[in-house]
Amino acid sequence: MMRVDSDRLQSDFDQLAQFGAFTDGEGHAGVNRPALSAAHLEARQWFLARAAEAGLETRVDAAGNHSAILPGGSAAARTLLLGSHLDSVPNGGRYDGALGLLAGLECLRVIKEAGLVLPVHLEAIDFTDEEGTLVGELGSGALAGTLSPGMLRQPRGGRQHLLDSLARAGLDEARLNDARRDPAGLAGFLELHIEQGPRLEHAGVDIGVVTAIVGITSYRLTYRGAANHAGTTPIRARHDAGVGAAAFLLAVRERVLSDFPDGAVNIGQMRFEPGAYNIVPGAAEFALEFRAPDAAGLSEMDHVLLRLAEKVGREHGLSLEREALGGCAPAGMGARAQAAIAAAAGELGLSYTDLVSGAGHDGQNLAPLTEAGMVFIPSRAGVSHSPREFSEWGDCVNGANVLLNAALRLAEEA
Amino acid sequence: MMRVDSDRLQSDFDQLAQFGAFTDGEGHAGVNRPALSAAHLEARQWFLARAAEAGLETRVDAAGNHSAILPGGSAAARTLLLGSHLDSVPNGGRYDGALGLLAGLECLRVIKEAGLVLPVHLEAIDFTDEEGTLVGELGSGALAGTLSPGMLRQPRGGRQHLLDSLARAGLDEARLNDARRDPAGLAGFLELHIEQGPRLEHAGVDIGVVTAIVGITSYRLTYRGAANHAGTTPIRARHDAGVGAAAFLLAVRERVLSDFPDGAVNIGQMRFEPGAYNIVPGAAEFALEFRAPDAAGLSEMDHVLLRLAEKVGREHGLSLEREALGGCAPAGMGARAQAAIAAAAGELGLSYTDLVSGAGHDGQNLAPLTEAGMVFIPSRAGVSHSPREFSEWGDCVNGANVLLNAALRLAEEA
Repeated sequence: MMRVDSDRLQSDFDQLAQFGAFTDGEGHAGVNRPALSAAHLEARQWFLARAAEAGLETRVDAAGNHSAILPGGSAAARTLLLGSHLDSVPNGGRYDGALGLLAGLECLRVIKEAGLVLPVHLEAIDFTDEEGTLVGELGSGALAGTLSPGMLRQPRGGRQHLLDSLARAGLDEARLNDARRDPAGLAGFLELHIEQGPRLEHAGVDIGVVTAIVGITSYRLTYRGAANHAGTTPIRARHDAGVGAAAFLLAVRERVLSDFPDGAVNIGQMRFEPGAYNIVPGAAEFALEFRAPDAAGLSEMDHVLLRLAEKVGREHGLSLEREALGGCAPAGMGARAQAAIAAAAGELGLSYTDLVSGAGHDGQNLAPLTEAGMVFIPSRAGVSHSPREFSEWGDCVNGANVLLNAALRLAEEA
Repeated sequence: MMRVDSDRLQSDFDQLAQFGAFTDGEGHAGVNRPALSAAHLEARQWFLARAAEAGLETRVDAAGNHSAILPGGSAAARTLLLGSHLDSVPNGGRYDGALGLLAGLECLRVIKEAGLVLPVHLEAIDFTDEEGTLVGELGSGALAGTLSPGMLRQPRGGRQHLLDSLARAGLDEARLNDARRDPAGLAGFLELHIEQGPRLEHAGVDIGVVTAIVGITSYRLTYRGAANHAGTTPIRARHDAGVGAAAFLLAVRERVLSDFPDGAVNIGQMRFEPGAYNIVPGAAEFALEFRAPDAAGLSEMDHVLLRLAEKVGREHGLSLEREALGGCAPAGMGARAQAAIAAAAGELGLSYTDLVSGAGHDGQNLAPLTEAGMVFIPSRAGVSHSPREFSEWGDCVNGANVLLNAALRLAEEA
């Protein structure tokens, strides 16, 4: 079995963590490397330099995706992508994205050093803006051809921030979609990532074989009752929108636990109107977000959870307003990719289990195009997007070895 | 039985409603007459002119309280106050405060016209800032000697607004407390007011005999759990502060309904942190306000409801922070005042019932000084602080007649 060089990978990991490095009040080291920030652009240059040092080809496409490439035996070969991202959320952790990209680079180096010539081009690719401080999965969306003008007109991080960031990186908005790749030229996509949840740690399992990346749907819901004097309006005579929102918050949680064991739900915002101590809330506006690993499940949740919201409102004499905020479709991972990951883990003597990714990843954009798979390793206490994000180095190396051997399996099948 | 002049009272009511008059989008006529606003000051001048026309004495004290006075038979007589207020909440209704003061003026006129000479001075007094757009019950607090420097330094409506308003009214902040009255000179205090709640209307009863004005206690409570990724953190593994806040909101409502039937509770503000769709709330901050008609009950609620908040927090793995925001003490109405009101209602053939006032009134400041009582009349649908505030004119006249005859009873006892 081929294996990565743990020390070299760790040296890369430590060097990369210096770009945008910061320490929180409790001494945890994190990185602040939002997409196309100065720290992110410096990290990308360092990545290209490390690839060049290893004798790999490098490439930057029209969407700013940065790649290291180990050419295959034939110029006409298809490309197997080993991708992740160098950007972070604001004040994020050192593992999210960084580990996967460095592991991809290390795979290319190990295979090159072994003198192996594969029937595919191997490409370690750093996707632009996975974390969405600009648009969200901008680089992989451009590669897949799904980056729409609307997403660029009303980007999550604001239009001016997008324009400033593209200019800083020397990118041309009108040419972003030139990064599109022909799916016929792709042999697959694999990504190593930290789980960002506690399931592997709790189960004591080394490797997660991702079966799907969840789809997400969001609504802004508002219950409307009647604002009234909190001293003179008897509790039973009120139409208290806050009571409805609280009852729904608890009910939707129970419903998802009982009926959608693969799903997730969150109410992450809540606001009462008029918002005075002595006035019964006349309106309660809140954010409903739910996730499911398959389209049928997501659609069923949509139906069931909104019907529940209507029912709870009626029970409390409240009307319900809803604003659909869209979301993204679930993405099933490829069967061959999953099998390659499981086989690699098994051969390496690692325990593994199927997992659904509750977080979004670039694999959502790749899955419709090509055979896509993801390898998860345990996250301590499930913490992510924080300087407290941590994975044992042994788990990181395990993940890199699984990535390496799964890539070799997929390459052989290509 | 002596009775007020319904037509004259209604003419006054209609004239007064022109000061600060506005109409809402649905055609309801309200008044916008915040304390010491131009509209309020004009209304006060009109009131003094109406009193002078009736041959009554007038007086403005150092706190801006405006009075019409019918002197008693002896200069050494004590004073029976018939008070309410001409100020309104922003965009409020025509009845709140206005009805009670005009009824007091009408009582003085009727008694004067009847040639009655009472053993007390009768004083219809318009208290400054009952509604609290400046400080809250500023005028009656000054009269009672309870207006503290701290209340003036950090007024509800902001320091600059207070200073501007006092200047507009020609009032000197340093002299406000000169309005203090010697309790030995007071024979009592009576106020007619709309109920501002639905209980009289629901019960089909004409008159409410107020037994107490509730005390109010407020806290800002915060549950703290752990902010986490809403996609990767299983529901059962979360420390979701929003779940705790929702559970407490429902639990505290049930507890007050079951254990404090005379009490009230409200959660009028709610805010989740960090407040993102895809992040489990790590903190939930909310406003807890509760009311009880007596000090023992308010203290018991404080103990029980905060213990409940701790318990709900523990059940959901959350810590609880509390910030006490103070409040005001309950004020029991005088037994003789209550008896006088009940007797007057009975003699007039009106149905009546005991009621607790869930809203604050100037009587809170008067009750510790003198025999204080309040007469309530039905509010349609319990609506108040709104241009939709409405009471049947017949009920208004009933209330004025009860005020008149209760005042005569208290005067006789003095």
